[in-house]
Amino acid sequence: MNNARFEQQIAFILELDKLKNVYRRSLVLHEDRAENDAEHSFHLAIMAALLAEHANEPVDVLHVMKMVLVHDVVEIDAGDTYCYDLKGYEDKAERELKAADRLFALLPEEQAAEYRRLWDEFEARETPESKFANALDRMQPMLLNYAKGGVSWMRHGITEEQVTCRNVPTVAEGSDTIGQYAKELIAAAKAEGMLK
Amino acid sequence: MNNARFEQQIAFILELDKLKNVYRRSLVLHEDRAENDAEHSFHLAIMAALLAEHANEPVDVLHVMKMVLVHDVVEIDAGDTYCYDLKGYEDKAERELKAADRLFALLPEEQAAEYRRLWDEFEARETPESKFANALDRMQPMLLNYAKGGVSWMRHGITEEQVTCRNVPTVAEGSDTIGQYAKELIAAAKAEGMLK
Repeated sequence: MNNARFEQQIAFILELDKLKNVYRRSLVLHEDRAENDAEHSFHLAIMAALLAEHANEPVDVLHVMKMVLVHDVVEIDAGDTYCYDLKGYEDKAERELKAADRLFALLPEEQAAEYRRLWDEFEARETPESKFANALDRMQPMLLNYAKGGVSWMRHGITEEQVTCRNVPTVAEGSDTIGQYAKELIAAAKAEGMLK
Repeated sequence: MNNARFEQQIAFILELDKLKNVYRRSLVLHEDRAENDAEHSFHLAIMAALLAEHANEPVDVLHVMKMVLVHDVVEIDAGDTYCYDLKGYEDKAERELKAADRLFALLPEEQAAEYRRLWDEFEARETPESKFANALDRMQPMLLNYAKGGVSWMRHGITEEQVTCRNVPTVAEGSDTIGQYAKELIAAAKAEGMLK
């Protein structure tokens, strides 16, 4: 096919298949296995569409959806860093920047720039869209962990304080409604012995 | 939490987790296992965003993305019917309608209606958005199958004619560019012995 632009888009789309084997710490609800980044991103995209009305500021839903679909792309090269792994966090930024440079460059130039900007925007957490996207990104694993009886938290000995500090301020920054739900979910998880 | 609307949205979001264990016939590229519906839908959503410029008619990208994210939801109850399984197709429509009735009703009323309309629209394949969404839905497994060396086609003894008849007209109806690519990919797959 004599269409270099289309071939570049297809190359990036095929590269994204690797997200299907970047495994996270959260478990899927109905099998005994970890969730992968493609499944997680799917979940965030539909949550963005369904829950946008709860964002603290009006958001461009298409913008949020594109952002959450690529927010973990860098983990193709950099791997998933467990959010309570302080050591892994030391060189996380460096590894992910290098990955972003390689991965988005697969796309045609102006799309590479657009999606790189979306990723940078997600990371900076300054716009209404990125605050809401980050709120969903923190809420989704809590939802799964709680619905799964807290297995993932208990397996790693996670405390109520860790989950609260890491997630509640970020969730509430994007959505007061979802932030309130997060607080209640954490309190229930503590009461039910899922969190130390 | 005293917010019935939000609780309904969360119930639907948790229900969608089941898409992570509805397995398809296509294999993921970098592991020896079938792709699931959540991964497939993730892939279609980002393809919609990246490839919208190739649609035959201008499309509302947000609309296409929402549509592809829920297009397989009914398989939670009805299962995945292999596209070359004529027997399975006999009662597919009936099983899927029943599933749609149950699943979308989990959402608050007007969202239930909105997402049910999106699913009906996808199935009817009459609007520019649903033609494009269906084109992506047919192209994505061909992309994966070809990139994986045709394993899935060979395992089921699929012929060039089957793949062409089932996919090329639908892909070309949504996008001439992608339709042309599909034809070339099938010809290459035949030449390389992946298709009978």
